[in-house]
Amino acid sequence: MQRSVYDAEHETHRDGVRRFVAAEVVPHRERWERAGRVDRELFLAAGKAGVLGVAAPEEHGGGGNPDFRFNAVLNEELAAADVLGVGLGLSLQADIALPYLLDHCTPEQAARWLPDVVGGETILALAMTEPGAGSDVAAITTRAVRDGDDYVVTGTKTFITNALNADLVITAVKTDPAAGRKGISLLVVDANRAGFRRGTKLSKVGQHAADTAELFFDAVRVPATQLLGEEGRGFYLMMNHLSQERLAVAVQATAQARRAYELSLEHAKSREAFGSPIGAFQHNRFALAELKTETEIAQSYVDRLLLAHSRGELDPVEAAQAKWWISELCKRVVDRAVQLHGGAGYLSENPVARAWIDSRIQTIYAGTTEVMKEIIGRSLGV
Amino acid sequence: MQRSVYDAEHETHRDGVRRFVAAEVVPHRERWERAGRVDRELFLAAGKAGVLGVAAPEEHGGGGNPDFRFNAVLNEELAAADVLGVGLGLSLQADIALPYLLDHCTPEQAARWLPDVVGGETILALAMTEPGAGSDVAAITTRAVRDGDDYVVTGTKTFITNALNADLVITAVKTDPAAGRKGISLLVVDANRAGFRRGTKLSKVGQHAADTAELFFDAVRVPATQLLGEEGRGFYLMMNHLSQERLAVAVQATAQARRAYELSLEHAKSREAFGSPIGAFQHNRFALAELKTETEIAQSYVDRLLLAHSRGELDPVEAAQAKWWISELCKRVVDRAVQLHGGAGYLSENPVARAWIDSRIQTIYAGTTEVMKEIIGRSLGV
Amino acid sequence: MQRSVYDAEHETHRDGVRRFVAAEVVPHRERWERAGRVDRELFLAAGKAGVLGVAAPEEHGGGGNPDFRFNAVLNEELAAADVLGVGLGLSLQADIALPYLLDHCTPEQAARWLPDVVGGETILALAMTEPGAGSDVAAITTRAVRDGDDYVVTGTKTFITNALNADLVITAVKTDPAAGRKGISLLVVDANRAGFRRGTKLSKVGQHAADTAELFFDAVRVPATQLLGEEGRGFYLMMNHLSQERLAVAVQATAQARRAYELSLEHAKSREAFGSPIGAFQHNRFALAELKTETEIAQSYVDRLLLAHSRGELDPVEAAQAKWWISELCKRVVDRAVQLHGGAGYLSENPVARAWIDSRIQTIYAGTTEVMKEIIGRSLGV
Amino acid sequence: MQRSVYDAEHETHRDGVRRFVAAEVVPHRERWERAGRVDRELFLAAGKAGVLGVAAPEEHGGGGNPDFRFNAVLNEELAAADVLGVGLGLSLQADIALPYLLDHCTPEQAARWLPDVVGGETILALAMTEPGAGSDVAAITTRAVRDGDDYVVTGTKTFITNALNADLVITAVKTDPAAGRKGISLLVVDANRAGFRRGTKLSKVGQHAADTAELFFDAVRVPATQLLGEEGRGFYLMMNHLSQERLAVAVQATAQARRAYELSLEHAKSREAFGSPIGAFQHNRFALAELKTETEIAQSYVDRLLLAHSRGELDPVEAAQAKWWISELCKRVVDRAVQLHGGAGYLSENPVARAWIDSRIQTIYAGTTEVMKEIIGRSLGV
Repeated sequence: MQRSVYDAEHETHRDGVRRFVAAEVVPHRERWERAGRVDRELFLAAGKAGVLGVAAPEEHGGGGNPDFRFNAVLNEELAAADVLGVGLGLSLQADIALPYLLDHCTPEQAARWLPDVVGGETILALAMTEPGAGSDVAAITTRAVRDGDDYVVTGTKTFITNALNADLVITAVKTDPAAGRKGISLLVVDANRAGFRRGTKLSKVGQHAADTAELFFDAVRVPATQLLGEEGRGFYLMMNHLSQERLAVAVQATAQARRAYELSLEHAKSREAFGSPIGAFQHNRFALAELKTETEIAQSYVDRLLLAHSRGELDPVEAAQAKWWISELCKRVVDRAVQLHGGAGYLSENPVARAWIDSRIQTIYAGTTEVMKEIIGRSLGV
Repeated sequence: MQRSVYDAEHETHRDGVRRFVAAEVVPHRERWERAGRVDRELFLAAGKAGVLGVAAPEEHGGGGNPDFRFNAVLNEELAAADVLGVGLGLSLQADIALPYLLDHCTPEQAARWLPDVVGGETILALAMTEPGAGSDVAAITTRAVRDGDDYVVTGTKTFITNALNADLVITAVKTDPAAGRKGISLLVVDANRAGFRRGTKLSKVGQHAADTAELFFDAVRVPATQLLGEEGRGFYLMMNHLSQERLAVAVQATAQARRAYELSLEHAKSREAFGSPIGAFQHNRFALAELKTETEIAQSYVDRLLLAHSRGELDPVEAAQAKWWISELCKRVVDRAVQLHGGAGYLSENPVARAWIDSRIQTIYAGTTEVMKEIIGRSLGV
Repeated sequence: MQRSVYDAEHETHRDGVRRFVAAEVVPHRERWERAGRVDRELFLAAGKAGVLGVAAPEEHGGGGNPDFRFNAVLNEELAAADVLGVGLGLSLQADIALPYLLDHCTPEQAARWLPDVVGGETILALAMTEPGAGSDVAAITTRAVRDGDDYVVTGTKTFITNALNADLVITAVKTDPAAGRKGISLLVVDANRAGFRRGTKLSKVGQHAADTAELFFDAVRVPATQLLGEEGRGFYLMMNHLSQERLAVAVQATAQARRAYELSLEHAKSREAFGSPIGAFQHNRFALAELKTETEIAQSYVDRLLLAHSRGELDPVEAAQAKWWISELCKRVVDRAVQLHGGAGYLSENPVARAWIDSRIQTIYAGTTEVMKEIIGRSLGV
Repeated sequence: MQRSVYDAEHETHRDGVRRFVAAEVVPHRERWERAGRVDRELFLAAGKAGVLGVAAPEEHGGGGNPDFRFNAVLNEELAAADVLGVGLGLSLQADIALPYLLDHCTPEQAARWLPDVVGGETILALAMTEPGAGSDVAAITTRAVRDGDDYVVTGTKTFITNALNADLVITAVKTDPAAGRKGISLLVVDANRAGFRRGTKLSKVGQHAADTAELFFDAVRVPATQLLGEEGRGFYLMMNHLSQERLAVAVQATAQARRAYELSLEHAKSREAFGSPIGAFQHNRFALAELKTETEIAQSYVDRLLLAHSRGELDPVEAAQAKWWISELCKRVVDRAVQLHGGAGYLSENPVARAWIDSRIQTIYAGTTEVMKEIIGRSLGV
């Protein structure tokens, strides 16, 4: 399938990304998965390779190009090298957290934070979810009480990507508990503040290199100058950013599905059973035909949205559609890829096995499949 | 979902098509379904409305524009008016049979046939399938023996659309039975020839207005000047035309699925149960969200192929992908639309009920889903 | 698969049923489907063959054996002879309507009605559904006002099986509109009463021999002696009878699925393509393996419930489980059977084509799949 | 759902099994999963609890009751305690390997091996699969050359359960490479033989406590007295034992699916979102209804086969049906259970997360889903 979503400049960028992934990610994957976290140096290398802040202004060290297709290229290349799971922290920083800063920082905040975020010296986390508030974001209970020039923050966050490495944590807090959604604000919390504590890493069944953990705020004093956007607007800021986050997941899921298909095709050509390559069996041939068809249809839809997004026209409902449908598709594709690989597909060394465990979370985070369907359903007026 | 596949000229054409459908098709649907065939006048009206021969040269009365998107517009408007099944014969003529003439006629043949085909005075049929040769086209046994300036044709064709109305039948015959695929040729048979006989209409479970029947050739003498293309090239001509035929099915299936979704949405808003519109129930809301998502993803893929085809770049494998995936999707969509309508969805008067019975054949004709997967699978080198 | 649900007496009964079906149903199928209804004589023949009233007391001409397995035998034999759709009215009488009379008649009513119902002289209908009340049975608005010794009934029923042939209509009415479910009663209405009128037959996409129609009650005077059970208990009576009705659908759906599988297997052995029987292709072989597996698993579950029911231990939740799962399975099975038959699977003469259109209603009537899931879900305490 | 497959003696046995699982398995699970293997002591405890050799003759310390339902009880109780994965080695010994000894040992071999196998002093492995021979068992290349009173065994086995702990390895070897299937024999290899070497544990994405590894045979001398059954009959012995092995997988998959359903139901009742328990949302309620329905239908079918097997009437085709269908069902059920649990469903501490990774291999080992469908398909004569 010929894609037309990318221009020459994206392909040039891709060359650099591919070198970065090959040199700075792939060689460390196994070690990082065993360690349960990536080294901080990954972010420095990413900053140096120019993949963290393409969208940031040039004055702060960024690429000055708010075209999300550059981010898509990173995700695609991570998947193509079987390290999408390892790159989760990079994606969190570049695709999801940085845009909050780009859109809502004051000039002073921008000058203070952006250069190091773009350069990879500062690692970001985004702390929304709580033990009692997942899909239901408005139910958060982390409290920020104004006290002089500070907010005093108390509460617990969980399922936080980059939790162990993060230097700055964009944190959703209740500044006005009585006001529901309108009482939520965003504070950028320095990780060296007194009262801030990281939990031990959560043991997950996949995404082993991702340092997902709880974060505890015990009367952490955060200067009011760390407020991001207006007080009481936090819920709406989060909702606005979710469309790009969901498109990012759709891009990743498409790339992961495609990779699993390609690995399956190779395997079907080389692995023999009953005297033939296993791809010679009609069932497997049909399976490959189905995987190719569905991943290309997904790619076609994602490319359409990437193009719309590059024109500033990403429809939140379409982002939700792409997110749920393709993350569910990816689940089916990697499952079939495992099956096509037989026992080998269950071994950690096999990229389809890792794709299978890593991608399972895609239908859950960034808004579950069910939340996506609610969003779409409500847009229909039913 | 905003589509960008059509230009202003297509939308202008659409206006005319819509008027044609409203005036010349919709009012007769029920009568034609009861009669088991459409009136010949439908083709005359279609010719007058300029929908049969957009792709034909202007010198023969056509539109002079070989852009398949104009044909797509006709299929979409038929579906939007719940008469896609009734328009099957038109689609057969404009999308499938006419292109054979456009691509392979000699100038003399073109001058002889095209004006009346474009004008609707001549109705076409395409006779490939036989009782013993469906997916396996090369297995046909209809024989054409050269005798002087004639071929003498003997054999039986079945599942032929327009069989009762057809004036000219493009007929696949074996001119050299020993040569396998290379022994197949195409003859254009006049329906008034001695020895040509139409069977009674086949009773189908859907597509009730389509005059599908068997055709019998009992030593029919056909002048050699009726040969279409070269002798022995028939199999390859047919294979080449199949991509557009499959894209046509994909366009129809997409339009039918979208229509079924829209009718379901309307129904979910107006029909009440247990004190609410049924769309207020989460299960139904999710169902509608799923239908919307999948039909738009299908639309996005079809539009991509329509655009490629308008540039002369339709990939046969992608056409096969669109054909199987979207015809299977349409089956799921209309089935769910029926379910959402409850008992009403089982009544012939209900357009989703008719869409359900009419569209079932889409995964079978123009190459079954299984044949599509073989084509895709083989293209992978497995 | 060896079944153990039937004893010798059921198999003896089966012999008679098979003869009845072969002699009295099969020869008339095509004519009845064209006519849109079965002859009244079918019921007389059924009565004579002893298949209508196995469960009725011997004193009223019945078999005196309230073992539903005898009814299951009838449904299985109808399916095995490809006339399940034609037998719908028999099933309605024997499996669904008669039990209302058996369970709730006074001795006087029993003596008056049962002999002719068992003998087939009297044809029953059950009128619950209304244009505005399908799944939501409690929403019916047909009114019965007490006036002296009569009720005066006014309202409209729809989707009524046996509507054109029925002599006695068990009709759900509101005797106390203010009391909700507790205001519903059952009246047995004689079809020759003034003010009672049958609509024209509803044109359905399948079940062509079933005389489904609307029934209109225009101030019909019904003697109070026609009340079935207590006033105000109608809703509960209906709910109690639904378990057997749902098991009946599960039995039918299983039998229809199995028959479609068997026909597909035969076809796969006899139909050739590309030089082999089509069953030699792995895709088709796997499809048949899947159909066999799933129909046998369904059979196993239904047999378990039949056995439980014969002991008086049919669990309503399990009946709901069997109903939705197997009717949905049947839909998948007949759809795949059509696909395996190719174009022939779309012709009315083909039993799998008829099974496909006839069985579609099974996920809708007797409680939709969605209503079944609500019933099961609520039983879980969630 | 009331089950009737078990008698009082099975339930008495269950009490003991439950105590054994609670005391000897559950407390060690986490440690064993971290260690990548269970302690040998587990087998001793299992022997003491009488769960390893119910089927073995009493004279050798067994229970003297070749009723597989006792084994089913063990699998069910392991699943109910969320330690099915940990118990894999026990199941391998009791359900799969021991029967080889029971059926084919000479009296001398029985006396030599059985007491310690039953008691858990001896741990068994079964070595069939090789790097180049998975589904295609006949393609094994491990060679056993007769040399005096010994066989000299050379080759490599992989994916061997209990590989690190095993004392006796029932090994499939080629004694006559020219004879295809008829050249395969079974040798019982003592793990302390020179030239026998265990690989390092294979790192799998699930089943973390299972010591799956490669086994290397480098000219291992095995006395001919270790031959199990006749020379050249190995392939047929293996095929005969596969039915019980497949039924065992079906039992496990059913138990695991049921457990995942039960955990999901509990979660849906206790977890709140948007102001309600999440089970109050129709989508989740329907999901639970579907899980309950399908797991009960699976249970019903497995129970049927368990009963048949206890009578010595297990049909290999039905065992294949149960194996593929229920292992595929289990995959769907645990996947949905994960989704219902949201982010928590991705954490290793959560039993549904572990069920998800552990059960994935069920559609692959003991004959893949595809091999099962071939077996069923071929039994149909197509």
